[in-house]
Amino acid sequence: MTKDNVEPSARVAMVGAGQLARMTYQAAIDYGVDLHVLASSVSDPAVVGGASYSIGNYEHYLDLVMVSKFGQVVTFDHELVPPSHLQSLEEAGFQLRPSPKALAFAQDKLHARRQLKNFEHINVSVPEFIPVFSVEDITRFATNHGWPVILKARGGGYDGRGVHVLNNSGDANRFVFDTTNSSEPAWVLEEHLELAAEFAIIIARRPSGDLVSYPPIGTRQEGGMCQEVTMPAELPDEVTSEAIRLAKEIVIGIGATGICAIEFFWTTDGRLLLNELALRPHNSGHGTIEACVTSQFHQHLRAILDWPLGSTELISPAATVNIIGGPFEVNLVDRLPAALSVADAHIHLYAKKSRPGRKLGHVTALGPSVEQALETARATARMFKL
Amino acid sequence: MTKDNVEPSARVAMVGAGQLARMTYQAAIDYGVDLHVLASSVSDPAVVGGASYSIGNYEHYLDLVMVSKFGQVVTFDHELVPPSHLQSLEEAGFQLRPSPKALAFAQDKLHARRQLKNFEHINVSVPEFIPVFSVEDITRFATNHGWPVILKARGGGYDGRGVHVLNNSGDANRFVFDTTNSSEPAWVLEEHLELAAEFAIIIARRPSGDLVSYPPIGTRQEGGMCQEVTMPAELPDEVTSEAIRLAKEIVIGIGATGICAIEFFWTTDGRLLLNELALRPHNSGHGTIEACVTSQFHQHLRAILDWPLGSTELISPAATVNIIGGPFEVNLVDRLPAALSVADAHIHLYAKKSRPGRKLGHVTALGPSVEQALETARATARMFKL
Repeated sequence: MTKDNVEPSARVAMVGAGQLARMTYQAAIDYGVDLHVLASSVSDPAVVGGASYSIGNYEHYLDLVMVSKFGQVVTFDHELVPPSHLQSLEEAGFQLRPSPKALAFAQDKLHARRQLKNFEHINVSVPEFIPVFSVEDITRFATNHGWPVILKARGGGYDGRGVHVLNNSGDANRFVFDTTNSSEPAWVLEEHLELAAEFAIIIARRPSGDLVSYPPIGTRQEGGMCQEVTMPAELPDEVTSEAIRLAKEIVIGIGATGICAIEFFWTTDGRLLLNELALRPHNSGHGTIEACVTSQFHQHLRAILDWPLGSTELISPAATVNIIGGPFEVNLVDRLPAALSVADAHIHLYAKKSRPGRKLGHVTALGPSVEQALETARATARMFKL
Repeated sequence: MTKDNVEPSARVAMVGAGQLARMTYQAAIDYGVDLHVLASSVSDPAVVGGASYSIGNYEHYLDLVMVSKFGQVVTFDHELVPPSHLQSLEEAGFQLRPSPKALAFAQDKLHARRQLKNFEHINVSVPEFIPVFSVEDITRFATNHGWPVILKARGGGYDGRGVHVLNNSGDANRFVFDTTNSSEPAWVLEEHLELAAEFAIIIARRPSGDLVSYPPIGTRQEGGMCQEVTMPAELPDEVTSEAIRLAKEIVIGIGATGICAIEFFWTTDGRLLLNELALRPHNSGHGTIEACVTSQFHQHLRAILDWPLGSTELISPAATVNIIGGPFEVNLVDRLPAALSVADAHIHLYAKKSRPGRKLGHVTALGPSVEQALETARATARMFKL
């Protein structure tokens, strides 16, 4: 049986098949875009969601080639593809969006901070940091900046993995550093900050240059994992406008395309500091599905396909609360009717089995105020807990 | 490879795999619902959209059994399943939502009109009509009610198919009627109406009884096919409230479950008349995806699974314009970038090849007023025309 009755469509290959790929897939259906994902198993959220897929390993170059051939452009649901493979794919002629050069800023915290300090025209501040080669580096830094200090894996960490708060030299002594490679440290150390707010600016940029920014999004982390998101973030206007300026300059400066989430710290002593970058649809942006004219997933497709970008206007104050696996396994679908009865929230489940600390879904509520939206989203998300 | 890492989910079987199934599938992903469709080919919109499927013919009982086994409930993307098969499926123990008894009201115009006239407590008016057995029936009716008259196939017609406007006895004489079966006429004749408005009331009802209604939706037909939809319909309050009362009574009276679209005529001489029923997500309700808190597709799943129903609140005035195939074949995906550049409309493509008169997609726009939303939606939809 042939599909000759079907419109030819734009084709996108996505490396990774998690919930970001799953929600990108839902948007792809609207635009008739053929999204093909590289999945690690048939249980991956985007595969269960119905995306066409290849099973493979994103660390294997030939698997990356296999999936890339399905797309006129190649994009990513995570930042874990080895940079050398990205380089090879680009040299082989695949259209990677974002590019390997841009992705390096999301993959390697040390690279990002070193480079961005050099973007002098941008004038972006980052937390005080050093590359770490030894325990002595930590204690010397703590002497200057005070305990606690934050030790972060240079790459590969997300959702709080690879982030350690060290309260004293005893904590520092528990780490063993490889001293054989003195030019390529695996860790970055940074100052502890007293935060007035954490927030993200989401930008979408087309290869041809256009870019748009979403309203600032407040994020509340717990154990390093994003738990709650509010739109718009409550910030003084001058902080918002400076953050949007910086975010745009950074995205242009690194040549990123697609959705870019630029995360900021705003400290109690009034400093606006760049935290980190994610060059893909981002957990902080899930509320854009209901709260903005164009969702980040639709926007990502438009941006990487070099199509006109959509309005980022906020329709209503909104809040998103993640559904995160607790210590006991629960069947989310069993809980769904109870959650649907709480209030008028938008529930998104990722078809993942419950495990402690695993993101299983999210709830977005709109409301007359951010506070009321947050209350609704929390009450709904709570129904999925034991 | 097993899917043991995936949550067990609610399972819905849907007969039919067109755009309604495709959009129901997008909603099913949010709720982790496993939607399995009966498709006529792998080119059907819901199959291209990623739904799991069986290929079969809805006129073949065993194909219906095959797909029904996939669901804890069985629902429908059209009204074309033979009533005797529906009956047999129900007797075999499948949970059909809506039930065969309710579906008969959407399948058979004559049955619906005869029965609803008998629901005396509801007090619903329908256009003047007669069953038609002969050309003489037509001319006699026209003598009483004046030309033109409207001849409608009793069942199976939609999007204007099976509807004929007869302007004089010459038009009537072109039809040949089977006079061998005098008890089961294939045609219904009805009076021509001068319309002030056509509109639909969409209701969702759970098996356990709860029901909710959406705001009234204005529809503009052309050649019998729905072309444009406005939310809310511009109607006097008393017409709206009477229509909602009638729609609820009808849905309760016929025992329908799931989404029900109750279409009304409002005539220039002030009569509110029932037009017809559709017991499934309906073209007039596509704007609920963006304009209402709960889309008709999410709501249909909630209703047939007997889950709590969601808010039907209208977030903003909105309009939907269908993208309908014109005389020349166009590739919609080629036109998509231009359409995206027009304005901030929400484009939904159905992955169907262009054919004259075929519904290929739709565009919804929100706006400060229905008029502005309609202007935006029209301007966007126009970009898909040659």
